[in-house]
Amino acid sequence: MACNPAFRRILITGAAGNLGAYLREALADAAAVLRLSDRRPLAARAAHEEVAAGELADFAAVEAMMTGVDAVLHFGGIPEEDSWDNILAANIRGSYHIWEAARRAGVKRVIFASSNHAIGMYPRTQRLDTDAPPRPDTLYGLSKAFGEQLARYYFDKHGIEAVCLRIGSCFPEPRDERMLATWMSYADLARLCRRCLEAPVVDCTVVYGVSANARLWWDNSKVDFLGYRPEDSAEFYAEKVRAGGGRFTPPDPAALFHGGHFVPIGYTRQR
Amino acid sequence: MACNPAFRRILITGAAGNLGAYLREALADAAAVLRLSDRRPLAARAAHEEVAAGELADFAAVEAMMTGVDAVLHFGGIPEEDSWDNILAANIRGSYHIWEAARRAGVKRVIFASSNHAIGMYPRTQRLDTDAPPRPDTLYGLSKAFGEQLARYYFDKHGIEAVCLRIGSCFPEPRDERMLATWMSYADLARLCRRCLEAPVVDCTVVYGVSANARLWWDNSKVDFLGYRPEDSAEFYAEKVRAGGGRFTPPDPAALFHGGHFVPIGYTRQR
Amino acid sequence: MACNPAFRRILITGAAGNLGAYLREALADAAAVLRLSDRRPLAARAAHEEVAAGELADFAAVEAMMTGVDAVLHFGGIPEEDSWDNILAANIRGSYHIWEAARRAGVKRVIFASSNHAIGMYPRTQRLDTDAPPRPDTLYGLSKAFGEQLARYYFDKHGIEAVCLRIGSCFPEPRDERMLATWMSYADLARLCRRCLEAPVVDCTVVYGVSANARLWWDNSKVDFLGYRPEDSAEFYAEKVRAGGGRFTPPDPAALFHGGHFVPIGYTRQR
Amino acid sequence: MACNPAFRRILITGAAGNLGAYLREALADAAAVLRLSDRRPLAARAAHEEVAAGELADFAAVEAMMTGVDAVLHFGGIPEEDSWDNILAANIRGSYHIWEAARRAGVKRVIFASSNHAIGMYPRTQRLDTDAPPRPDTLYGLSKAFGEQLARYYFDKHGIEAVCLRIGSCFPEPRDERMLATWMSYADLARLCRRCLEAPVVDCTVVYGVSANARLWWDNSKVDFLGYRPEDSAEFYAEKVRAGGGRFTPPDPAALFHGGHFVPIGYTRQR
Amino acid sequence: MACNPAFRRILITGAAGNLGAYLREALADAAAVLRLSDRRPLAARAAHEEVAAGELADFAAVEAMMTGVDAVLHFGGIPEEDSWDNILAANIRGSYHIWEAARRAGVKRVIFASSNHAIGMYPRTQRLDTDAPPRPDTLYGLSKAFGEQLARYYFDKHGIEAVCLRIGSCFPEPRDERMLATWMSYADLARLCRRCLEAPVVDCTVVYGVSANARLWWDNSKVDFLGYRPEDSAEFYAEKVRAGGGRFTPPDPAALFHGGHFVPIGYTRQR
Amino acid sequence: MACNPAFRRILITGAAGNLGAYLREALADAAAVLRLSDRRPLAARAAHEEVAAGELADFAAVEAMMTGVDAVLHFGGIPEEDSWDNILAANIRGSYHIWEAARRAGVKRVIFASSNHAIGMYPRTQRLDTDAPPRPDTLYGLSKAFGEQLARYYFDKHGIEAVCLRIGSCFPEPRDERMLATWMSYADLARLCRRCLEAPVVDCTVVYGVSANARLWWDNSKVDFLGYRPEDSAEFYAEKVRAGGGRFTPPDPAALFHGGHFVPIGYTRQR
Repeated sequence: MACNPAFRRILITGAAGNLGAYLREALADAAAVLRLSDRRPLAARAAHEEVAAGELADFAAVEAMMTGVDAVLHFGGIPEEDSWDNILAANIRGSYHIWEAARRAGVKRVIFASSNHAIGMYPRTQRLDTDAPPRPDTLYGLSKAFGEQLARYYFDKHGIEAVCLRIGSCFPEPRDERMLATWMSYADLARLCRRCLEAPVVDCTVVYGVSANARLWWDNSKVDFLGYRPEDSAEFYAEKVRAGGGRFTPPDPAALFHGGHFVPIGYTRQR
Repeated sequence: MACNPAFRRILITGAAGNLGAYLREALADAAAVLRLSDRRPLAARAAHEEVAAGELADFAAVEAMMTGVDAVLHFGGIPEEDSWDNILAANIRGSYHIWEAARRAGVKRVIFASSNHAIGMYPRTQRLDTDAPPRPDTLYGLSKAFGEQLARYYFDKHGIEAVCLRIGSCFPEPRDERMLATWMSYADLARLCRRCLEAPVVDCTVVYGVSANARLWWDNSKVDFLGYRPEDSAEFYAEKVRAGGGRFTPPDPAALFHGGHFVPIGYTRQR
Repeated sequence: MACNPAFRRILITGAAGNLGAYLREALADAAAVLRLSDRRPLAARAAHEEVAAGELADFAAVEAMMTGVDAVLHFGGIPEEDSWDNILAANIRGSYHIWEAARRAGVKRVIFASSNHAIGMYPRTQRLDTDAPPRPDTLYGLSKAFGEQLARYYFDKHGIEAVCLRIGSCFPEPRDERMLATWMSYADLARLCRRCLEAPVVDCTVVYGVSANARLWWDNSKVDFLGYRPEDSAEFYAEKVRAGGGRFTPPDPAALFHGGHFVPIGYTRQR
Repeated sequence: MACNPAFRRILITGAAGNLGAYLREALADAAAVLRLSDRRPLAARAAHEEVAAGELADFAAVEAMMTGVDAVLHFGGIPEEDSWDNILAANIRGSYHIWEAARRAGVKRVIFASSNHAIGMYPRTQRLDTDAPPRPDTLYGLSKAFGEQLARYYFDKHGIEAVCLRIGSCFPEPRDERMLATWMSYADLARLCRRCLEAPVVDCTVVYGVSANARLWWDNSKVDFLGYRPEDSAEFYAEKVRAGGGRFTPPDPAALFHGGHFVPIGYTRQR
Repeated sequence: MACNPAFRRILITGAAGNLGAYLREALADAAAVLRLSDRRPLAARAAHEEVAAGELADFAAVEAMMTGVDAVLHFGGIPEEDSWDNILAANIRGSYHIWEAARRAGVKRVIFASSNHAIGMYPRTQRLDTDAPPRPDTLYGLSKAFGEQLARYYFDKHGIEAVCLRIGSCFPEPRDERMLATWMSYADLARLCRRCLEAPVVDCTVVYGVSANARLWWDNSKVDFLGYRPEDSAEFYAEKVRAGGGRFTPPDPAALFHGGHFVPIGYTRQR
Repeated sequence: MACNPAFRRILITGAAGNLGAYLREALADAAAVLRLSDRRPLAARAAHEEVAAGELADFAAVEAMMTGVDAVLHFGGIPEEDSWDNILAANIRGSYHIWEAARRAGVKRVIFASSNHAIGMYPRTQRLDTDAPPRPDTLYGLSKAFGEQLARYYFDKHGIEAVCLRIGSCFPEPRDERMLATWMSYADLARLCRRCLEAPVVDCTVVYGVSANARLWWDNSKVDFLGYRPEDSAEFYAEKVRAGGGRFTPPDPAALFHGGHFVPIGYTRQR
């Protein structure tokens, strides 16, 4: 069933990536038309699909892909740590292009793939709720924090609704001890995106993208109005993961902060 | 089993209404004597029942129905928006009569059917806990906020315990998209009333009357001491409700605030 | 200088009372026209004054006094504990009449003389800020809490701005030990009313009406945007007051709660 | 499977007590070596067990039992109200000896059996989270609050990690109405201790030791990072307990505060 | 003028110490009788003075000094870091003796000289209000935290009121850069003690003993009901202090935490 | 007197701007060497001055100006709303260059001229403290929010301390009604910068740059440890400003939000 009568055409950026490709299938019935975009080659495979290729760093291309769109799932951009120049082009300029083009095209809502690395420098023993301000752990995380700020700005100034998904570790299975806390199944990601589209009102909202794990660090209770109720849990894999031995140990900063193995990249802080 | 050895006789006001009539049956074993009151005709049907008819606006009648009572389930009064004169008589003067008569009769505890319309003007994206002060959406909601204030006053000044139930949408089934958040089953209402009676101490407490719905707006965690654990969920009806299409859409204020279709009644605010 | 270009005609209710009469003089230049209302006789004494007599319990009279008014200083009604019938007529029905007539007349802002007795049942050792919900100490305090609820309702539903002044002890001098905390000078009351009129925006705001006393219980910091800065202090009178001996002593409830000598009126709570 | 590669030898104090004896069996595989200590006689029964007898009040004995230890489960000391001299020797001096010897021996983590009686004087209607500061109900509870303070001090000053378990009512079954809220099954205690050992980082953390009871007073959500998920519930025994009639009734202070029957011991407060 | 009609005889412990000796003079008129106690020799010098010598570690002596006393200023005990045995005897057992003897003698209020070293391990950049739980920096600070816990226990269980003064740096002048934040003048100490005695109700309250310094770390606003308004400021000495050069520099832990030079004593924490 | 022995050479960026030029004089004695940088021409005028010209968008130039620097006052960049390309170059890339060059050069502390426009979209009736996350009102404000995020990142990851000054309206005099709340005198700016340099520890701190105005919206109390105590007040100019008539009126968004006349620039939000 279509998620929301107000959204006839939904654009998915990064549609050739792991998560984008999954959502393309899982949300096939979410709207009359799914428009797919990526810098990598893509082809429409079904009647409800459209393709609009292009670089996020190219504003004209982004404007073109936004024509006639009602809602955006913005999953494009660089998904890990990279050089400042690359991050700047794809994630900072790219996300600005998305929202500015969305404003010009009259888009009503943007679902943004933010990341737990936007809050990666919080200590592991501190539970975070959805009001926790960013503390990025990398330039990548910094660019996600900037995207969340764009979401806030375009909502406050121009009324474009947004949900920023601080996605944990979205993989087929949890792969190390940290992911017993941070794992999100693909199916739960799709459930969350559906609810972000279904809700009649979302204003500008942050939500953690995480399954119903037993060893959780993040608290979504303030955004229960979204109705997101994860159905999978990393705990199912706990024995296997613990037997596999993937485990960060203090004083490795990967063990001390939310961001895990992104934290030690270039880490130089003392004290 | 009787709920509480301290409560031998319990008065139910509004006992001929939908909720009152349900509770009359569901709580048949809750105390040695159930006294039933309404402005509409009622007859005792069982050995443990007593009837005390009367208008809430008539203090002498209220005083009479309170004789020998230990605890009150105050479900009487006007259950929807109405004229100021009617609301004033039945809900404002009426509730004052209930508490003042309760004080004179030595009643120990009042369970009050307040309403989500006492907090109906909060934005839909804001989760509310049991400390949220009233923001009524109608004159009806205003009278419920006044009832909660009476509960506070008679507890602080005279020690009468109270639980104010901010009841959501108590119907056989959820009927529109909003009720996926606000629905309360009859069975959960009875569970909640039982726990309000069983608890050895309640002081003056607010609790949301709502089932275990997935798309919840209200947070009862601060009053977990009551032990209320709902067992039903509106999500069971989600497909049916969504297929039925009952859905408020922005900028209709019914979509933007907790109170739903009560909000647009006479709404004139701009900005 | 006129306080606010948007307010050409200001209505003062209770203009024959102590505070009303003071404000009539102190705010003589606050607007082009001051309209004065009371149930007691009043006469215009200056070109900028108009008189509109009438009972607050009489809706037609209230509607008449509201014609052409831009802002209201609502200081009318019963100023102390009284019977339920009197409180109901003057303060509950009366205040409803004020706001409903204001809505019909297009009034933009209401400054409401609430009272510390709306929060009189908080323990004396608890500091209150402007978000503290009411805990009235008397039927009088209960009616002031109802007035604050009306203010909220008419702002949320109809956009009428309001400032609720929780006035402490407004007398020429502090008269007992408690007033070293709760005293408000007449001059500070006038300063506060001016700022409530001057501010371009007030939404629906609660502020404590109190001077800059050393032994303060109330915290106005959240409403600093009003710019109210009291210039008087009860501490100037501390020696005199302490020599005079007016002092509540535990376990007298007058010593234990914010509301002072209003608390013991009819107090029956045990434990 | 061993809980944590960093903990090869774990010391259990109070190993001859009810909880200590249970943990000795339940955690048999938690580390390569379990060293057992008590003032009462004990004998090693398995290859992985060591015995180190001694009084907690004797520092030399405590220093000896700490040699080569990586982590401590400190369940020794007096488990109920007693004279000041006894409490001082076993619980205040004794706990100091534990932490000071741990510091000298290079112990990395201490799991401390604190108690709900450290917070027993909070009102029963107030939900507590893990930041609630102590309000002890007895000299026993006071000594547990002191133990929590030692944990904080040795973490802040010397980096010894700690988890303070505010254990509710750890018995084979709940035995009265209050235990419907406070009960902890033996199995859940073992689950909790395992998670306290497994976690790579715990800093200095307080957690309530309680099962997943329906009528709960305590909120562990801030320490979800521990991954403790109780699997038992007192509600299973609710009918039996309520039929048995064990129930405190106001104004008995045992009914009014978290600490239950410890509260009336010597209670003399009025008001 | 006598501070409080309820307190005819006030006991000062530690009356031969720096602060005790100052208060003996400054509060000479605070009650009809000042009873002075210390382990060091003392003699009465005025008609309103009594002397009761004795060790705090000797319960019989403490019981004797408490006879007929209405309120206590407990300034006795060891005022700096010392061995565990000395701290245990004078500050832990000693303070227990004070409160237990006070309970037996019917004392109504205890003013306790706690210390900033009870909260010395908070980071210097974190402002603390009066709800901040202890984080002691030394065994001395730990004993002060224990005294605060005794105050809470004897208030909750036996109704003895208490004010715990977390005294900063009480010297004739600030002597280093840290004291620009933490200094308390002798005169402000006396002002604070007067207000603690004058207040009709204090329940169990924590207050920081500090002057009106510009570079403040501590926030007394929640206890404004005491009416403490310091009149001195360390800023007056800022040039002199800064020219003198007394300044802790990171990474010295004395620069990083509230407790200053007490923090490095025995500090071994890494990370 | 030099502010801080740890800072021998301080770099001021934007030293040819209004605020930079003022600080160049006002802080002449703050360190042994002041290095001045701007894209506009500058010349050293005193023995303690050095000049290092260059564009912020040119990383090599920024790296050169950072050699040998201990602390930075980063006042460079575009000071008002501009095109995305200009903001991106000077404020986003420029600020990244500052922090990255600072990291490479071993700079210890950065004082960053953020702006109230980073929080300009908060409603005018909401008081903000220093934990309020950004809600920018313009692309300019968005770039300042990004600068604050850089400060957080480089502190968390690399230990570079930072103070972000959310400067209000820094002009010789307040010029309109809004500036009665937001004005900062030049002298107070210099006082604030001095304290940011003097403090032995600042971690990563936000502070509002504002004088001691009566009609204040911003609350610096959480950072009192800085010791900033403004000495000027806009209220001195209140009569003059109000007579001049500069006043935003609802529903102009300039009247409704903190950001004033920046808010209406391109504002298109409805509802």
